[in-house]
Amino acid sequence: VRKLPDVQIAIVGLGLMGGSLAGALRGKCRSIIGVARRPETIEQAMARHLIDRGSVDLAQGVAEADVVVLATPVRTILQLIDELDPLLKHGCLVMDLGSTKTEVTRRMAALPDHVQPLGAHPMCGREISGIEAAEPTLYRGCTFVLTPLPRTSKAALGLGRSLVEAVGARPLTLSPERHDRLAATISHLPYLLACALVGTAESSAEGDPVVWEVAASGFRDTSRLSASDVTMMLDILLTNRQAVLDAVDACQAQLRILTDLVEAGEGEVLRTILAARRNRRGSLFT
Amino acid sequence: VRKLPDVQIAIVGLGLMGGSLAGALRGKCRSIIGVARRPETIEQAMARHLIDRGSVDLAQGVAEADVVVLATPVRTILQLIDELDPLLKHGCLVMDLGSTKTEVTRRMAALPDHVQPLGAHPMCGREISGIEAAEPTLYRGCTFVLTPLPRTSKAALGLGRSLVEAVGARPLTLSPERHDRLAATISHLPYLLACALVGTAESSAEGDPVVWEVAASGFRDTSRLSASDVTMMLDILLTNRQAVLDAVDACQAQLRILTDLVEAGEGEVLRTILAARRNRRGSLFT
Repeated sequence: VRKLPDVQIAIVGLGLMGGSLAGALRGKCRSIIGVARRPETIEQAMARHLIDRGSVDLAQGVAEADVVVLATPVRTILQLIDELDPLLKHGCLVMDLGSTKTEVTRRMAALPDHVQPLGAHPMCGREISGIEAAEPTLYRGCTFVLTPLPRTSKAALGLGRSLVEAVGARPLTLSPERHDRLAATISHLPYLLACALVGTAESSAEGDPVVWEVAASGFRDTSRLSASDVTMMLDILLTNRQAVLDAVDACQAQLRILTDLVEAGEGEVLRTILAARRNRRGSLFT
Repeated sequence: VRKLPDVQIAIVGLGLMGGSLAGALRGKCRSIIGVARRPETIEQAMARHLIDRGSVDLAQGVAEADVVVLATPVRTILQLIDELDPLLKHGCLVMDLGSTKTEVTRRMAALPDHVQPLGAHPMCGREISGIEAAEPTLYRGCTFVLTPLPRTSKAALGLGRSLVEAVGARPLTLSPERHDRLAATISHLPYLLACALVGTAESSAEGDPVVWEVAASGFRDTSRLSASDVTMMLDILLTNRQAVLDAVDACQAQLRILTDLVEAGEGEVLRTILAARRNRRGSLFT
């Protein structure tokens, strides 16, 4: 395994995450090859100086790559891992940016022995997607989870860490299962809450369409994640089912605590809990 | 009832909402009197040119006012209405900015006959509170609900509307009950979801404190409302109990639809619903 400045990196998928990573890494490694299905995406990535070269052909794109980064929705990553199997350069590091890690790293375990697999997930994003939304600064200051496999070498993990640091992010090594449990609570649950909120307003609007006229910034922010890319989120939910269901259960229990207190008019107990939530939120974000 | 440029307006409560309203109305009416409990609040409102004069004495503050606007949490508004009863100038318009309207307008119905009562609720806000957060531009472009009582005269409602328009907002006349039902769905429910989300992460953090390290912009935005002023929110929940409980029930049903589909792995049905939520959110906000 080489050092970052010496490696050729192929990024498969040039949407928000892949395009941003390409732009953030460009100039910090030997070269960046972008791989996308549509030639227009390659053209846009070239025009925006996010990549050095591009290809719509997976085999050609990864043939000379020392590092291959899969930056597509999770279920496409699972397919790509199988497809890549015979195409990879000897000793190549295969990373992915998929939002769930257990199924991805399980699939990576079947890659040829000469390959170094490394799961990864940057904890950042935007609700807009596509190469148009890509920004080389996207990863700055974010936590970038790495989920090595038992077979992943120290050198390969080190190269993964230097890639993460090169884009301005903080590497955090976790097991895939632990990542998926945490992500269910901190990311997949908020998405489902946002969708359920919009669904609640939608069914309320059937009786009284004025509901949309009174929607303000509180509704806007709480519902923001429902605008996320549907394929990305669907793949997340379906590849992290149990953890997602557990997180929703835990949240429904939290909701019931609150509604029981509201129903009983238990103002002072309710105040204590609401104040604790406010203080916690205040300690996390300003 | 006079026209806006001729009236003296007393604003009781100089927090985010009252301070912002004062600043937005100043110069558009004869004078703005601020009433607050603490002299420092009056001083700050004067220093920020939000009010013409101020008083820590309710009787003195409202004695000459043609319009009195109550801009405190809802349960304080209920107390203030009783206290104001003997203090109001003949023919005075009494408005409030309380976040729930049924209990407030019920209490207003007991005001002396010579007074014109008018419930109101601007659909805007920020999670920060206090005079420091006040901005005269806060109301621009927002929907400003007016909930007249059966006894409210056309002229009084007209003065209320011109006040709303003077601060750059869109007046929307609703019954108090209809307002409270809509607000439960669009505002009080999102607040409880935000609190339940933080509570879920909090209990998850007891087992694994790394959860806070992976919290990113999605968690930040979905949880934002949990940072709202606790007294304001507590008063809302306790004065709108049934509508709040109904909204949470409806949302839990929406959540169950989603989790049932996740559990069953019904990808295509799930995709259809998630896409509908995304499209709706996209039609409301960009």
